[in-house]
Amino acid sequence: MGTSLITSRYFIVFSGCLLLAIFLICFSWTNSPISNTKSNRLHRIAISSPSPQHPLDPLSLDEISTVQSVLRSYPQFSFPNAFPSIHSLSLEEPPKSVVLAWRPGHAFPPRRASVIAFSSGKSHLLTVDINSLTVLVHEIVTSVSGFPMLTPEDLATAVSIAFSNSTFLDSLISRGLDPSELTCGPSGWFGPLEESSRRLMIIDCSTHKDTINFYMKPIEGLSALVDIDRNETLHIWDIDRKIPVNSDPDTDYRYEVQKEKDQPSSCKVNPIFMIQPKGPSFEVVGKHLIKWAGWEMHVRPDARAGVIISQVKITDPETGKYRQVMYKGMVSELFIPYMDPTDGWYFKTYLDAGESGFGIQAMPLDRLNDCPTGAYFMDGVFAWADGQPYLRSDMICVFERYDGDVAWRHSEGLMTGKDVREVRPKITLVVRMAASVGNYDYIVDWEFQTDGLIRIKVSATGMLMVKGTTYENMNQVPEEEDLYGTLITENVIGVVHDHYINFYLDMDVDGSNNSFVNVHMVKQETNEGESPRKSYLKVKKHVAKTEKDAQIKLKLYDPSEFHVMNPSRINSIGNPSGYRIVPGGTAASLLDLHDPPQMRAAFTNNQIWVTPYNRTEQWAAGLLACHSNGDDTLAKWTEKDRPIENRDIVLWYTLGFHHVPCQEDYPIMPTVSASFELKPVNFFKKNPILRVAPYSKDDFLTLRSKASA
Amino acid sequence: MGTSLITSRYFIVFSGCLLLAIFLICFSWTNSPISNTKSNRLHRIAISSPSPQHPLDPLSLDEISTVQSVLRSYPQFSFPNAFPSIHSLSLEEPPKSVVLAWRPGHAFPPRRASVIAFSSGKSHLLTVDINSLTVLVHEIVTSVSGFPMLTPEDLATAVSIAFSNSTFLDSLISRGLDPSELTCGPSGWFGPLEESSRRLMIIDCSTHKDTINFYMKPIEGLSALVDIDRNETLHIWDIDRKIPVNSDPDTDYRYEVQKEKDQPSSCKVNPIFMIQPKGPSFEVVGKHLIKWAGWEMHVRPDARAGVIISQVKITDPETGKYRQVMYKGMVSELFIPYMDPTDGWYFKTYLDAGESGFGIQAMPLDRLNDCPTGAYFMDGVFAWADGQPYLRSDMICVFERYDGDVAWRHSEGLMTGKDVREVRPKITLVVRMAASVGNYDYIVDWEFQTDGLIRIKVSATGMLMVKGTTYENMNQVPEEEDLYGTLITENVIGVVHDHYINFYLDMDVDGSNNSFVNVHMVKQETNEGESPRKSYLKVKKHVAKTEKDAQIKLKLYDPSEFHVMNPSRINSIGNPSGYRIVPGGTAASLLDLHDPPQMRAAFTNNQIWVTPYNRTEQWAAGLLACHSNGDDTLAKWTEKDRPIENRDIVLWYTLGFHHVPCQEDYPIMPTVSASFELKPVNFFKKNPILRVAPYSKDDFLTLRSKASA
Repeated sequence: MGTSLITSRYFIVFSGCLLLAIFLICFSWTNSPISNTKSNRLHRIAISSPSPQHPLDPLSLDEISTVQSVLRSYPQFSFPNAFPSIHSLSLEEPPKSVVLAWRPGHAFPPRRASVIAFSSGKSHLLTVDINSLTVLVHEIVTSVSGFPMLTPEDLATAVSIAFSNSTFLDSLISRGLDPSELTCGPSGWFGPLEESSRRLMIIDCSTHKDTINFYMKPIEGLSALVDIDRNETLHIWDIDRKIPVNSDPDTDYRYEVQKEKDQPSSCKVNPIFMIQPKGPSFEVVGKHLIKWAGWEMHVRPDARAGVIISQVKITDPETGKYRQVMYKGMVSELFIPYMDPTDGWYFKTYLDAGESGFGIQAMPLDRLNDCPTGAYFMDGVFAWADGQPYLRSDMICVFERYDGDVAWRHSEGLMTGKDVREVRPKITLVVRMAASVGNYDYIVDWEFQTDGLIRIKVSATGMLMVKGTTYENMNQVPEEEDLYGTLITENVIGVVHDHYINFYLDMDVDGSNNSFVNVHMVKQETNEGESPRKSYLKVKKHVAKTEKDAQIKLKLYDPSEFHVMNPSRINSIGNPSGYRIVPGGTAASLLDLHDPPQMRAAFTNNQIWVTPYNRTEQWAAGLLACHSNGDDTLAKWTEKDRPIENRDIVLWYTLGFHHVPCQEDYPIMPTVSASFELKPVNFFKKNPILRVAPYSKDDFLTLRSKASA
Repeated sequence: MGTSLITSRYFIVFSGCLLLAIFLICFSWTNSPISNTKSNRLHRIAISSPSPQHPLDPLSLDEISTVQSVLRSYPQFSFPNAFPSIHSLSLEEPPKSVVLAWRPGHAFPPRRASVIAFSSGKSHLLTVDINSLTVLVHEIVTSVSGFPMLTPEDLATAVSIAFSNSTFLDSLISRGLDPSELTCGPSGWFGPLEESSRRLMIIDCSTHKDTINFYMKPIEGLSALVDIDRNETLHIWDIDRKIPVNSDPDTDYRYEVQKEKDQPSSCKVNPIFMIQPKGPSFEVVGKHLIKWAGWEMHVRPDARAGVIISQVKITDPETGKYRQVMYKGMVSELFIPYMDPTDGWYFKTYLDAGESGFGIQAMPLDRLNDCPTGAYFMDGVFAWADGQPYLRSDMICVFERYDGDVAWRHSEGLMTGKDVREVRPKITLVVRMAASVGNYDYIVDWEFQTDGLIRIKVSATGMLMVKGTTYENMNQVPEEEDLYGTLITENVIGVVHDHYINFYLDMDVDGSNNSFVNVHMVKQETNEGESPRKSYLKVKKHVAKTEKDAQIKLKLYDPSEFHVMNPSRINSIGNPSGYRIVPGGTAASLLDLHDPPQMRAAFTNNQIWVTPYNRTEQWAAGLLACHSNGDDTLAKWTEKDRPIENRDIVLWYTLGFHHVPCQEDYPIMPTVSASFELKPVNFFKKNPILRVAPYSKDDFLTLRSKASA
């Protein structure tokens, strides 16, 4: 952003616009949603916009308004109809060195916005200085393929183009459908019909007749290919008219609908709450800096990444001083390929951050049910396509958690004659957001433990993307036929798919210059006569020299630990200070490396990658991921095989899920979670929570007196 | 147990007594622990002993006393000094068919005890009928190698033998050690010194001078090989006298010691509790049958397995009727091999259930810190070596959990114009025990979700097993030298090791006859011209015919789901009812298959196994695991490659951890957890918790009025 990386004319080969995470954003034809939401704007803007407290605080409503004004008066955009659509407008982070040097009370580095705009088929990257009201940088992207994230307005346009096509409308009507009962949305696309310079989408529809859950009622076999910039419908597919729409009357998941139905009383449970008799232990400085249990971190909403966690530090209990752990962590990209290669489905592969904005899709959290009592809620501030700001209330919550688990314990057995039972409860701090990317809901949790561990968890829930079928029972399906999924109810197939969530983790363990170490565990055979044992597990450490040395495919029978360590911070017994990444939630993409969706989501080719820090390399599938051909991805950057030893390095990790749907996922899916961890390894001299207090009888008396009153 | 499986004379080849989970049970020489604990017995026995409420209720204090009387008057044991030592005395489960047919109000099947006794080098298996006061079965094991679990008395004997050896004592004194400040314990053993018919142990010591945490202060290089039956010391190793004892004055983890020391106030957190304004939702029928949220399960303590969960059923929300899920689930065995092949360490490989009794090591839970408020506590009742019963109070807890996570959710995005935010809090029920097997503490949780999922989690904490060294800094260690671990503080190495926990899971999904299905996901390439996609993930199901067909080594790049399904319960759309095992916490043993410790822990050769139900096959490393040579293990049984399709089958899963210690593990380890899941798959017609209520404003008002009072 604002750099010269992207300079020559872009070029698309066999690529396309893979839009809108999983059915992404759907429009009810009759609801005129854009006008509805726009009517709420003025109210929102009236909310006061405080000045920043930290160099990384996101742009405020006022700051975005200022940027909008600067762009409106910018000569290149100020003649009639020249104002581009704004696809991204967010804080341009000051250089890392400037942020690291900043201290409270210091003057703020200049407040600047990074803007990605689109006009006449061209992507513009701009830097706007908010203090001087000037456009500092303006580049037109010519070097790489791809388009900016789509705006909500783009999606509305796509739907309205299809609905203005009489063939499309006629087919709907001849299928016996009332267009006023349809919810339609654009989906990704690539393949033979693609052209390099056009923003194309495919529209298909579902019915919301008698249910909010239109996702379970697809109109199978009808779709329209549209050009959203030229307002043209290029092709209509109209096949499989014999496939019925799912007629199940019980797909609505809303409590107001379901509460009328019987539930066995034995299945009911009473509510449980977490309460803190002495109050919460975390402090929010300004709106974004969180302090808790020796941790400090900056948390901000982001339209693309969702949540950005910055400048994570932890107090060393030996010195009482902060030590750096991570400069920046965030979701960089998601990839959701569906596993059906047939006509109506082959294009359904999505990049949920780069195509549609993971943060844009993060709706306000339910204060009663999404986060426990005592949570702190943080708003997001984003921009519409015309540059006007809006507020996404309650987008992130921060809360303390106690779930009954223990941080450490030990009892002495009955045989030592020592009456020892020392147990410490585990209390953590969670930073949460939930993005509803069309049908799917993703909950992203950053959980901080008092012992220095950070757990990053992604939970998937919401609705499946389903396919209509004539089959009502598996006994009707010929043995040789591949359904590409599971028959989950009459006439409905849950299509097999994967989810990959890539995390950008700019680790700065005790400073920026770190190394990546493969702590390899190998079977070592003993020599004849050396030992009664034939074998043992031997640890062999290898410091990765270059990027290719740190491209990791995990193997159960060839295990390693993966450490990010600081070779300049050797402690008193000679071990370097480090943090481990503890993989979890692993699934590997099995798609062909040259399959177009895999090429642009090539970050899934390995589970772990390491790159030297480069501020232009933050989005694993490229800055302009939509329609890209994969020429600006993690896989491409690392082909340079740059040195990574004792440098400022970035760790990339991909969580994965294979999802073969089952009946229980219908009509709404129970949450499935996966997580990985960042864990101190020889970072502290000893267990950093050796001295914490257990819960005492007094704590319980306080609780009881409150609870029984 | 009461069967004829074990009939011919036992025979040991290259095997041995791998005792006492990780440094297992340690005796303070001066504390006379056995007499201390025995003095508490009479008090315990006075507690009233209710009659059983369920055929699987464990033996009561009275019932064990009755069994002891029957054995004392049993002619073969009643002449002078003929009474054997009792190594196991527990409920002999009635036949599965009898338990399945039993209903409340029916007459109880006969109450019987399974007893494993040891006398004059021979293992005796007995069945005692409690009602008729008779010994029904008495077999002397001759067909397989191995000895029964060790008793606490065996361990005390081993230590006292070493301490009666003057060479051993002299060496301690010449090292400047005061024997009254030592805590010594026996450890596993195998190798060239082993003999087939002797129960041998190796004793080594640590000092508890100025600390409770003797585990961190080993006396390196001195150990004694003893025969616990003949009261002989066979060998003394006395090497490495120059290795100092760790002199760190800050190893004691007890709060009464640590609270005097400074902790940065910013690191402190306030307590959090879970409270239930409307009370708990679970019911305990009798003492062992738990009903919650439509679930029913029987929970009982067991000396060997720790916790046994039986007859797990869940209510189908469509019919309100119970459906069977699992007949029995438990920890079957643990395996903890240390990765140091040198003289003082090669024998440190442990089977924590079969050698020392995982349940015997489960100490009373801390009611304030091991389990949250509102927990129900269950006592264990076990027998001493003389057959006298004792009570282990608060051995298991059962509690409801809410940690702020959600069971399912969906928001509609801003674009559909629909204001939908439906979120359901996730509430679960946890059954927990914590075993302190010497240095290590294992917490085992069975967590039940309202959506039918069962999560089985093992958490490891407590103390490392460490090795003394002369090194104080890694810069003193020659590059070619293998420490077999990490220098975690001056003079102390945390030795690399693995943990494997094998679970026995007798799944009965909608009945006993089930099949095991490998739901294989393979890369399928498309044909030229078939699709713009080159590849997709195709699901191929394979029903395992025989045991070898179901021996699974997990592979990230060759993924499968693993279903246990009932081929006779095909639902209305043609899918068989099933439960999946969702692997997690995977680590594979890399030891040579012919390494003696690996032979007896051969259950770690695969992550998943399936066997036809056989009531004599419950312990993955054999009924008589101690000193065994692996001739009665899961790996041996499955060599028969028996049919497993549409039969009563048992699923076996092994959780694994590789542990390369780090400084943070010193002097007590932060908890590390791993889990796997049993998850309904096409078991329910749809999401079974579609109809549950979210938390309402009323719930919060109730809470607030209680909390603020």
